[in-house]
Amino acid sequence: MCEASAYIIDGESEELIMEAVDTVDPEDGGFKLTNIFGEQKFINGVIYSLSLVDHKVFFKKSS
Amino acid sequence: MCEASAYIIDGESEELIMEAVDTVDPEDGGFKLTNIFGEQKFINGVIYSLSLVDHKVFFKKSS
Repeated sequence: MCEASAYIIDGESEELIMEAVDTVDPEDGGFKLTNIFGEQKFINGVIYSLSLVDHKVFFKKSS
Repeated sequence: MCEASAYIIDGESEELIMEAVDTVDPEDGGFKLTNIFGEQKFINGVIYSLSLVDHKVFFKKSS
């Protein structure tokens, strides 16, 4: 399975916000994350970078 | 391996721009894609959505 962990970059730090993320879809100016267990979370930010072989997705808060 | 295919959404159509993408990093107002073979490509757009279990990353051109 190729799900990833989602982190939000806030200044110098990275905070884990969700594990096992499958889909990330634009919604209301941010993104809706859905993981492989069907759990959902909304992020008010943008997709900043991806490191897929490392299973990581980075978001940055909207300024 | 959890690399993905990158597509760019242009209106109603999706165009495959790179396979086996590993990292996607912000650069010069767009994104630099690097695949598992070390090939690189620049996209003048934003990351629109992700479907990781399907190994797909969607970009949208900057307007």
